Amino acid sequence: MSEPSDSSAGCVFCGIVAGTIPSAKVAEDEMTLTFMDIDPGSDGHLLVIPKRHCADLTDIPPEDLAATTLVAQRIAKAVLSEEFGADGVNLFNCCREAAWQSVFHFHWHVIPRYNDRSKDRMELPYEPGHPADLNAIAERARVLAGLL
Amino acid sequence: MSEPSDSSAGCVFCGIVAGTIPSAKVAEDEMTLTFMDIDPGSDGHLLVIPKRHCADLTDIPPEDLAATTLVAQRIAKAVLSEEFGADGVNLFNCCREAAWQSVFHFHWHVIPRYNDRSKDRMELPYEPGHPADLNAIAERARVLAGLL
Repeated sequence: MSEPSDSSAGCVFCGIVAGTIPSAKVAEDEMTLTFMDIDPGSDGHLLVIPKRHCADLTDIPPEDLAATTLVAQRIAKAVLSEEFGADGVNLFNCCREAAWQSVFHFHWHVIPRYNDRSKDRMELPYEPGHPADLNAIAERARVLAGLL
Repeated sequence: MSEPSDSSAGCVFCGIVAGTIPSAKVAEDEMTLTFMDIDPGSDGHLLVIPKRHCADLTDIPPEDLAATTLVAQRIAKAVLSEEFGADGVNLFNCCREAAWQSVFHFHWHVIPRYNDRSKDRMELPYEPGHPADLNAIAERARVLAGLL
């Protein structure tokens, strides 16, 4: 295994990939690693990461993003199985500090949900039912479309 | 365009794809459509969907999941540009009612975040800092690994 690049020096998730930091591993393939989040938002909260270091969603190569996402889908299906017992599942990515990213190695959160909310330590992220100004929304769409 | 299958009959997002329901469209390609969420969790909240109907994360074919995710990445980069002005971005998927899915046509939420939290209507989904029982976590990992 090659030496970590400067960007991965001190990265906790690179340490987990390298085996120098312990984790509860669930699945592994050539490009990805899946392990339990030790600070879970719900019972069974997992993380899926690319093995090679990339800081965030803007930094991850498309092939690694596709690979991690397809693994996350596979994990989600297992989580929803009768044996595991979740009733729903969220996939969640945080990109940059303003979006609550705290480890700067790309990761999907796979968060099982239960009809029994006592297994849940993460609230509904927002209260729907507040439609915004449709003109303002259309303007934001116009600006964004011009940037693509 | 073929008739919608039974599963897509009455689907709001299939209506948006078909153009029978209005939306603020941002981007479109052969497989995906991106438009503004009219009930935004933050300024500029978008949705990326596959054009063909699939109910949720367990139902979406891998090629559609990869395509929508790579579009969401492209949208996230635009959202983080100086012109658009977000400081962070979340990708979020809700699978099943227990995970707050309300429209049963797969969709990525792309949620811009701002250092200025007044632009935000969606709180941090959970408070970190409550590490769980490591033995319990390891047991869940063992069960899940056996299901894959």
